[in-house]
Amino acid sequence: MASDQSPEFKVIGTRPVRPDGIDKVTGRAKYGADYALPGMLHGKVLRSPHAHARIRSINVERALRLPGVKAIVTGADFPEVKGVMAQVGELIVNTHYLSLNVMARDKTLYDGHAVAAVAATSKHIAEEALELIEVDYEVLPPVMTAEEAMRPDAPVLLEELRTRLMTHRTDPGSPEGPDRPSNVPGHIRFERGDLAAGFRAADFVVEREFVTAAVHQGYIEPQNALAVYGADELVTIYCSTQGAFNVRTLTSSVLGIPEGRIRVVPAEIGGGFGGKTTVYLEPVAALLAKKSGRPVKMVMTRAEVLRATGPTSGIKARVKIGATRNGQITAAEVWLAYEAGAFPGSPFAPGAMCTLAPYNIENLRIDSFDVVVNRPKVAAYRAPGSPASAFACECVIDELAEQCRLDPLEFRLRNASHEGTPQPAGPAFKKIGLVETLEAIRASDHYRAPLEGPSRGRGVACGFWFNGGLQSSAVVNIHSDGSVSVVTGSVDIGGTRATQAMIVAETLGVPVEDVRPVVADTDSIGQTDVTGGSRTALATGMAVLEAANDALAQLISRAAKLWDKKPNEVVFAEGTFRPADGGAPPMTLRQLAGRLARTGGPVVGRATVNAGAVGAVGNAFATVCVDVEVDPDTAKVRILRCTIAQDVGRALHPAYVEGQLQGALAQGIGWALNEEYFYDQKGTLRNFGLLDYRMPTCLDLPMIETLVVEVPNPHHPLGVRGVGEVGIVPPMAAVANAIYRAVGVRMAELPMSPPRLLKAMLATRAEPFEEQATAAD
Amino acid sequence: MASDQSPEFKVIGTRPVRPDGIDKVTGRAKYGADYALPGMLHGKVLRSPHAHARIRSINVERALRLPGVKAIVTGADFPEVKGVMAQVGELIVNTHYLSLNVMARDKTLYDGHAVAAVAATSKHIAEEALELIEVDYEVLPPVMTAEEAMRPDAPVLLEELRTRLMTHRTDPGSPEGPDRPSNVPGHIRFERGDLAAGFRAADFVVEREFVTAAVHQGYIEPQNALAVYGADELVTIYCSTQGAFNVRTLTSSVLGIPEGRIRVVPAEIGGGFGGKTTVYLEPVAALLAKKSGRPVKMVMTRAEVLRATGPTSGIKARVKIGATRNGQITAAEVWLAYEAGAFPGSPFAPGAMCTLAPYNIENLRIDSFDVVVNRPKVAAYRAPGSPASAFACECVIDELAEQCRLDPLEFRLRNASHEGTPQPAGPAFKKIGLVETLEAIRASDHYRAPLEGPSRGRGVACGFWFNGGLQSSAVVNIHSDGSVSVVTGSVDIGGTRATQAMIVAETLGVPVEDVRPVVADTDSIGQTDVTGGSRTALATGMAVLEAANDALAQLISRAAKLWDKKPNEVVFAEGTFRPADGGAPPMTLRQLAGRLARTGGPVVGRATVNAGAVGAVGNAFATVCVDVEVDPDTAKVRILRCTIAQDVGRALHPAYVEGQLQGALAQGIGWALNEEYFYDQKGTLRNFGLLDYRMPTCLDLPMIETLVVEVPNPHHPLGVRGVGEVGIVPPMAAVANAIYRAVGVRMAELPMSPPRLLKAMLATRAEPFEEQATAAD
Repeated sequence: MASDQSPEFKVIGTRPVRPDGIDKVTGRAKYGADYALPGMLHGKVLRSPHAHARIRSINVERALRLPGVKAIVTGADFPEVKGVMAQVGELIVNTHYLSLNVMARDKTLYDGHAVAAVAATSKHIAEEALELIEVDYEVLPPVMTAEEAMRPDAPVLLEELRTRLMTHRTDPGSPEGPDRPSNVPGHIRFERGDLAAGFRAADFVVEREFVTAAVHQGYIEPQNALAVYGADELVTIYCSTQGAFNVRTLTSSVLGIPEGRIRVVPAEIGGGFGGKTTVYLEPVAALLAKKSGRPVKMVMTRAEVLRATGPTSGIKARVKIGATRNGQITAAEVWLAYEAGAFPGSPFAPGAMCTLAPYNIENLRIDSFDVVVNRPKVAAYRAPGSPASAFACECVIDELAEQCRLDPLEFRLRNASHEGTPQPAGPAFKKIGLVETLEAIRASDHYRAPLEGPSRGRGVACGFWFNGGLQSSAVVNIHSDGSVSVVTGSVDIGGTRATQAMIVAETLGVPVEDVRPVVADTDSIGQTDVTGGSRTALATGMAVLEAANDALAQLISRAAKLWDKKPNEVVFAEGTFRPADGGAPPMTLRQLAGRLARTGGPVVGRATVNAGAVGAVGNAFATVCVDVEVDPDTAKVRILRCTIAQDVGRALHPAYVEGQLQGALAQGIGWALNEEYFYDQKGTLRNFGLLDYRMPTCLDLPMIETLVVEVPNPHHPLGVRGVGEVGIVPPMAAVANAIYRAVGVRMAELPMSPPRLLKAMLATRAEPFEEQATAAD
Repeated sequence: MASDQSPEFKVIGTRPVRPDGIDKVTGRAKYGADYALPGMLHGKVLRSPHAHARIRSINVERALRLPGVKAIVTGADFPEVKGVMAQVGELIVNTHYLSLNVMARDKTLYDGHAVAAVAATSKHIAEEALELIEVDYEVLPPVMTAEEAMRPDAPVLLEELRTRLMTHRTDPGSPEGPDRPSNVPGHIRFERGDLAAGFRAADFVVEREFVTAAVHQGYIEPQNALAVYGADELVTIYCSTQGAFNVRTLTSSVLGIPEGRIRVVPAEIGGGFGGKTTVYLEPVAALLAKKSGRPVKMVMTRAEVLRATGPTSGIKARVKIGATRNGQITAAEVWLAYEAGAFPGSPFAPGAMCTLAPYNIENLRIDSFDVVVNRPKVAAYRAPGSPASAFACECVIDELAEQCRLDPLEFRLRNASHEGTPQPAGPAFKKIGLVETLEAIRASDHYRAPLEGPSRGRGVACGFWFNGGLQSSAVVNIHSDGSVSVVTGSVDIGGTRATQAMIVAETLGVPVEDVRPVVADTDSIGQTDVTGGSRTALATGMAVLEAANDALAQLISRAAKLWDKKPNEVVFAEGTFRPADGGAPPMTLRQLAGRLARTGGPVVGRATVNAGAVGAVGNAFATVCVDVEVDPDTAKVRILRCTIAQDVGRALHPAYVEGQLQGALAQGIGWALNEEYFYDQKGTLRNFGLLDYRMPTCLDLPMIETLVVEVPNPHHPLGVRGVGEVGIVPPMAAVANAIYRAVGVRMAELPMSPPRLLKAMLATRAEPFEEQATAAD
C-alpha cells in the first residue's frame, strides 16, 4: 500500500503544486482554440447526413461564389494513399482508411463522415457555404451493429475487405474462408490446452452472451487545428493532440508530404483519453491552407465530435467458463466481435488479449473479430478493447464464484495471475501486482463494512492492461541561476509536467519549484510518441531521469574542474557537490550553475528511450469494489460507494495517480450506467450533445476511494508502471455484479440505464407486471 | 581570397536558400508585433519632454479614471536595484542605471526618458491616458556633449558619480582626482614604451582633434514586448531581441524576480545591430501585466525608438601620431571621450582598445573617458566604440602617409599588426588577417583602376574588432524520416539559421534542406548569449557542430548495434554508414533513422560551449576603399565605388557573409555622411523620424564590392572568425580620406553632411568666399 513517500526519495512520492495549475485556472494556458494568426481563415466541414451512401457527385460552384469563401476541398483534392500499416501508440493504423476517414471519396460510411470542407473569412460564411455545396448521394442501407454486419447477407461497406486470420496483433493475417467481400477484416485467435477436457473437468459451467454500447471518450475540448502551409511546402500545425509526432506522421501519410516538412505544435489539451491520438481536421486544415494560401483554423462543434470522432467499439461477446467446486477455473472460451466503425481497426486484438489476463487458465480459446459498421471509425479509448471484454468475463467469473459459494475476491485470488503465469496471448507475466490489488480491496474499510438496506448490492471486478512503452526524448537545461528546465515532447494530460519536474528535482537535489517543464513541438525535441498507453510517466520519465543524470555527470565534471580534481573525486549528495577529500568548501547546484560559464559553458543533458524495446514496461491490474442502490420503481442506479485498488508500480505524484484512478473509475461508471449512442433506423445519430449523451457528473458519483498499490516495476529505474488506463477496465462488471446483488438481475448489456435495467427487473417479476411494463414502454 | 567552396567541405561555402526566406517574404514569420493573446491590453509610455529635470510629483488619478485604463506604473512601482555590474554580451551592464533608464525615478535625464506607463484596452485609450498624467517637473539645464559635460562647472547629471581610473575593461576602477560629483564615471588608460622618445624619433608628427555624432542603430523594427505575468509569479515575455537570455537576466534584475521565473520567447527580429541587447519595454510590460492581471503588449513608435533607444556614442577625440620618413610609426597618443548618454556605460574601453590595433606601435598612450550627457543611454552598435575612434586615428594615419609620400596602403602595410604583435590593451594577436585584407584591396580591380575627373578622390582605411565568444547551446534531433532539426537559442539576424543547418548537413552528410533550424525560448534550450559581437556563427556554430557530432556518434553506435559490431568497426562517410569489414550493405542516414526505434529509441545530440573561455575567438580586420565625388556647389558627397576586404576566417555561407560586409559598409557610409541627432538648445530631439534622421538607402549607394578574405581561425573547428561587425569600422575614415583627395579638405567632424563639408570647403577658399558663405549660413 502506498505511503505518500518512500524513504529512498525526497521528492518522488510527494505532492507538489502542479506547474500547469495556475495557467489552467487563470486562462493563461493556451489551448488550440486560443491560437490565432494574422490573415487566418476559418474552416468548416460538410458532413454526410447518410450513414451509408455512394457519392455520385459534388458540386462546389455555388459555394465558391459566396463572398468570403477562399477555398473548398473534397476527396478529389486528397492524394491516393496506399494502405500502409503504421503502428501509432497502441494501435495499428491503416493510412489508406485513415485518409478515407479524414475525407470521404466515393462513399460515405457514417452519419457525420466528412465530404467537403470550406475555408472562409469567417466561421459563419464557411457554414453558409456548406449549405451551398450540392452532393448527390445514392443512399444505401446502413449496418449498425457487429451482429448485423457479420450476417452473410449484410450490405457490404468496403468491397475490398476479406476476412483474415491473425495469430498475433501485428500479424497482417492470412485469408480465412471464401474470397468474398466481408465486413469482418480481422479475426484473431488465442488458444492453449484442451478446451473440451477443461470443460469436462468443471463442476460448473457458465455461458452467457453480452452486448456493450459504443461510448465516446468524452473529452471536454473539441478537436481543433490551425494550419499554415508555406510556399516552401513547409506545414505548421497547431492542434489539440495527445501526440504531436503522431499528428506529424499521420498528416504526412494522408497528404503525401514528407514528415520533415511538417512541424506540429501541440497546444494545451482539454482531455483526450485516447481519442486524440489520430487526425481528423489537421490534414483538412493543411489542404485548405495550401489552396487558400492563408492560415486556416478549424474547431469542431460538440455535435461534430460525437458524430465523427472517437468512440470506442461496442461489442458482442459470448463467454463460457468452467470451474471446479472449489473454485478452480478449468477452461474458458470467449468469442468477441468488436465494432470498428466505418473502417477496419477496432481494438479487437487487445480486447482478446486482456479479457482473461487476470486468471491462470490452462485451457483456453479466445476468438475476436474486427467488424466494420456504419458508425464513426473507432479511436483509442483508455485501455482500448479491454473494458468491454472484461465486462463480459468478469460477470461470468462473478456468477461462477456464486455457484462455488465463494467470496468473489476469494474466487479470483484462487485463480489469480502472478509472476510467471502465461498471458492469454503468450508470454508469461513478469512481476505483477494483481494479488496485491485483490488483497487491498479485501482488507479495505469499504469491503469490510456491511452493506445494509433493500435494493443494495456490492460488486467487485478485476481488470488488466499491458501499459505502453514506446519512444521518448528529453533535454534538461541547467540555467545560470540554478533553475532547471526539462524539455520533452509529451503533451501533459494527466500531470506529466509535474512528474518530470519531480524526477529532475529528485535527481539534481533542487527544489521542484525550480524545475520548469516544457512541452516542445516536433522540431524542437526528439521523437516522442503519444501521451497515451499509460506510457508517459514510465517512458518519458525514464528519458527525463537519464537526461538529468547526463546533466549531473557534466555538473560533476565541472565541479571537478573548478577544484582541479577528477570527476570521481567529487561527491554529489542532496544537491551539494563536495570534493571527496574535503579540500574545498562544498558547492550547491545553484552555486555551481553560476560558474558554468567559466568551466566550459552551459550544461545541457539529453536522453532518449524506447521503453518497450528495453523491456521496461510493467503491466497493470486493478480491482474495483462498488456499492449500488437500485431504485425499485425507476431502476436508476445510485453509486453509494466505490473503491479502486490499482498497482501503479510507483506513485511519483500520488495526487495525480489518485486522480487518474478516480477519473478512470468515473468514466467506467458512465460506461456502465448511461453512455450510449442512439442511432435511428436510418443510422442517424440522435443524441449528439452532452445533454443527451449522458456522462456522469460529480452529482452522479460519490467521492471515489483509491488504494494506490505499489508493487514496483523492477524493470523501470523508478519502479513506475503507468496508471492512466487500467482503472477503467473493472467498473462495468463491478457495477453489474453489484446490481445483481441488489436486485437479483444479471445484466448482460451496457449501459445498464434505467429503461434497460427496469425491463430486466420486470422480466424477473410476475408476468402481469411485465405486460404492464411492456405496455407502458 | 575566398573561393566559394573549399575542397574539404561539401556544404560549407555553398549558398543554399535561406530557411527563413519564405517565412519572411510571405509574412509567415512572426515578429513581436504579430503576437496577440486573449484579453491583451496595450501599453504606452509617457516620456519626459525635458532633457534634464527633477520630477517633483506624478499624479495619475485622472488617467486612472479614464474608462479602459487598467493599470499605470511609475518609477515608484519599480524596486530599488543595487548597482550590479553584469556582463551581457560585449558590454558591462550596471543594473541600477538600467532600472533608472527603464523608468525614471526622481530625475529625467533625456528627452524621451520614460516617466510612467499605462495599460489600457486599446492603444488609443492608453495614449489618451498619457495626456491625463500630470508630472510636475523642475527643469534643469541640459548637458549635451562630452566636451561640455567634462567642464568643471558643468551641471551634474548623477550626484553619486565619481571619476574612476580603470586599467582594463572589466576593472571597477579606483578613484581618480578629488571626491566630487563628476559626469565622467570612467577613465581607462593603456600605455607602453616611452612616448616622448617615440615622438622625438619621428620625422613627422600629426596631431588633430575629431568629433563624431551619435548615430542610431537604425533597425527597421521598433522595440516591442508582450508580457504575461501569472498569479504564480511566472512571467512570459515575447519580444524582439538579439538575446532572449539577456532579456531574462536584465528583466530579472530590474524587477527583482528570479531568472527562473521568467521565460523569454524571442520573436523574429527586424534588425538589431546591437541595439536589441538590452531592455526597455520588457520590464514595463511585465509590471503593467502584473498590476492589471492581463497580458500587456507594447510597441514603440519610430519617434520613441529615436528618442529613447540606442544610439551609439558621439565622441570627442585628440590623436597625435609620429612616424619616420620611411613610414615607420614611432609613437601615438590618443585621447577619447565617449558620450554615454544619461547613464554610465559607453563603449569607451573597447573604443580605446581597438583604435590603433591595426598597427604595431612601440610607444603608445591611449586615454578614454566615459561621459554622461543628457541624451538617451547608448546601446551597443556594431563593433561598439571602434568606428568612432578608428575614424580619428585612420584620418591621422592617412595624413602621415601623405607626409611620408607613401601609398596609404603601403604605409599601413609597413606598420601592420600580425600574429604576435601586442594589442594596444595587452595580449599579443593570435593569427590574424589584416595584411591579407590590405593586400586584397591593393590587388583589387577597384584600387588598380584609375580615378579620373574633378572633385573625385579615393580613400582607404582599416578597422579592427575583437569578435565575441560567449556561451551557446545546441540540440540536434534526428527524426525518424531522416530529417534533422537543430535547436539553438540564437536569434537569427544575419543568417544563423542557414549556417546552423549547413554545419549539421556537412557533419551528417544530409541535404541542407533536410535540416530544420529552430530558435528556442529560454526554457527550451541551454544558456545562449546574444546574437551579437560577431559571435553566433563562431560560438553557436561550434555548439551545433559538436551537437551534430554527438548525434553522429550515437548513430554510429546504432548502426554498430544493427550489425552486431563495435562502434569503431563502423565507417561513416558522405552520409553513409558501412561496416568496416564490408560484411553488410551500407545504410544511409535516412535508412538508419527509420530503425532508431529498434536500436534504443530516438537520437538527440547536444553540446554547449563557452567559445571565449576555450580561446576559440578569432579577431577581425577589414580594409575599405571608397571613391567619392563631391559636388563643388552643394558639397553633397556621392559614393562612386566602394570595396571592402575583410578577413572572415571561413565564410560558411558566402552570400550571407557578403551581405554582412555590405550592410556594415552601408551603415558606415550613413555614419560618415548623414546620420546625426539634431537636439535644440533645450536638449529636445528635433529629428525623430526616418525622413529627418537620414540613413542611406539603396539610391544613395553603389553596389558594394566585397572581397571575402579567408585566413582561417586556427582556434575554431571550422576556421570561423565572425563577420558582423568589423566592416563598419573603416568606412568613415575611408570616406574622409577620399573627400580630402577630392577637394583637399581634411574633415574632422562627422557626419560630413553637405552643410558641414561645404563650410569646410569654403574655409579653404579665399576669404571673400568664406565671408559670403558665412553670411549665407
